[in-house]
Amino acid sequence: MTDLSLAAARTIVDTALATARSRGLKPLAVIVYDARGSLKCVQVEDGASLRRAEIALAKANGALALGLGSRAIAKRAEEQPHFVAAVSHVVGPAALVPVPGGVLIREGERVVGAVGVSGDTSDNDEICAVAGIEAAGLRADTGA
Amino acid sequence: MTDLSLAAARTIVDTALATARSRGLKPLAVIVYDARGSLKCVQVEDGASLRRAEIALAKANGALALGLGSRAIAKRAEEQPHFVAAVSHVVGPAALVPVPGGVLIREGERVVGAVGVSGDTSDNDEICAVAGIEAAGLRADTGA
Amino acid sequence: MTDLSLAAARTIVDTALATARSRGLKPLAVIVYDARGSLKCVQVEDGASLRRAEIALAKANGALALGLGSRAIAKRAEEQPHFVAAVSHVVGPAALVPVPGGVLIREGERVVGAVGVSGDTSDNDEICAVAGIEAAGLRADTGA
Amino acid sequence: MTDLSLAAARTIVDTALATARSRGLKPLAVIVYDARGSLKCVQVEDGASLRRAEIALAKANGALALGLGSRAIAKRAEEQPHFVAAVSHVVGPAALVPVPGGVLIREGERVVGAVGVSGDTSDNDEICAVAGIEAAGLRADTGA
Repeated sequence: MTDLSLAAARTIVDTALATARSRGLKPLAVIVYDARGSLKCVQVEDGASLRRAEIALAKANGALALGLGSRAIAKRAEEQPHFVAAVSHVVGPAALVPVPGGVLIREGERVVGAVGVSGDTSDNDEICAVAGIEAAGLRADTGA
Repeated sequence: MTDLSLAAARTIVDTALATARSRGLKPLAVIVYDARGSLKCVQVEDGASLRRAEIALAKANGALALGLGSRAIAKRAEEQPHFVAAVSHVVGPAALVPVPGGVLIREGERVVGAVGVSGDTSDNDEICAVAGIEAAGLRADTGA
Repeated sequence: MTDLSLAAARTIVDTALATARSRGLKPLAVIVYDARGSLKCVQVEDGASLRRAEIALAKANGALALGLGSRAIAKRAEEQPHFVAAVSHVVGPAALVPVPGGVLIREGERVVGAVGVSGDTSDNDEICAVAGIEAAGLRADTGA
Repeated sequence: MTDLSLAAARTIVDTALATARSRGLKPLAVIVYDARGSLKCVQVEDGASLRRAEIALAKANGALALGLGSRAIAKRAEEQPHFVAAVSHVVGPAALVPVPGGVLIREGERVVGAVGVSGDTSDNDEICAVAGIEAAGLRADTGA
């Protein structure tokens, strides 16, 4: 059991972006945190809007903060909006965006990091995150 | 293809206010950001309420952050209120107000800035923003 | 005794920028608040750096917050740095930058607003602010 | 004259890290913003401490905000500590760290982005940033 390496994080980001290009998606921001919530790798495609990276960071930060893929946080937001709104203030400056596309990276059961993707529909964002994590030989936990 | 000039931003604001006066609208705040989200030009009419400028800033900031005119953000807010509420925390201190009146300034396809107008109805605010952008020879993207 | 009008604020900003151009100064951000701390008028010249407007806002906000031209706040910062550092957290999100260039606008004794200028040396910034205020027939209080 | 591309940003980061490895430096965080202050590319090496990326972000953000390489901001901080401390509050949530290693990316005279490096001595951090920028065919402005 090891920490998430930069090499793995790069594979995740490169694969997520290759997946987006093969599907003709809009320009994406893809970010990877390690288990501590430290940035490991970010790439933002040309043409992405001004705060696309911040949204990707918030999806992944929320997943790490709660130990739940952001698809599960989206469900919780529908059931208990006050909980999720309040939690967004206490999970650090990156906050939280409760829609799919914030995916936990697991090695076995252990959380070793999280990926955040933003730019296309939330479902498409999530597809790219999962493809990246699996290409690195790790397990994607979307919260589904 | 050039940056948004102060001369163009002034034309936008002056025309938006002239449009408001010709229609007898309430006192407006009109603000222009460049593509970086840096202020270029602001004018707030006499009689505007205390935080009218902040609302105009938030309309334009949201449009730039998401790459969507604020009319589209308003629609998204009706469909996914949790998403829009959460995003308002991660788009910088100017935040986001999801109603019409935050209009992207495009030169061809490229976003060169955004206009925010607040003070009258959202529909009237948007009319003034569009008039200003077109007077400067640029293209208004309301998100409609 | 009246509120600061948009017409007066525009005269202040236009004159400050004309003064900068006649002296060959670097690109400036010039902002005017009314007595309530509401924005009245902003113009930021082409070529200004990314957060130049925020610095101008902070100079003027500090002046309004403490009722002192920012030259006086700079002096206080040298004498009592802890006071000024702490106050910067409690004067609202625009904060405070304690160098010359944040000038109170007085009509007689009454404070009717503040001007903030940033882009060149602090002394030159202040010269432009004062020129603008005097062109509007008002009294500049630099804190000197 | 074009925007900073992701391809160029990747060249900058890869070269900065290759430079660090060839010199046996400590683990680095290397980040690239475009001219808007939007993240383009980040890589943080294995073994970097918890908030190393935030320091790199703050070096680059300060450079962009003031239009000065962070070596010049470091000099200003020695001369006017109150100014630099205060400005750190008004340049956005990434704040400002006034030591070398935040380098403006120029194409001709135009600022197209900024690089921030943190992990080794500030002088070594800056050497890696400059090597990256030059490898992308752009001009490094350290503030020296």
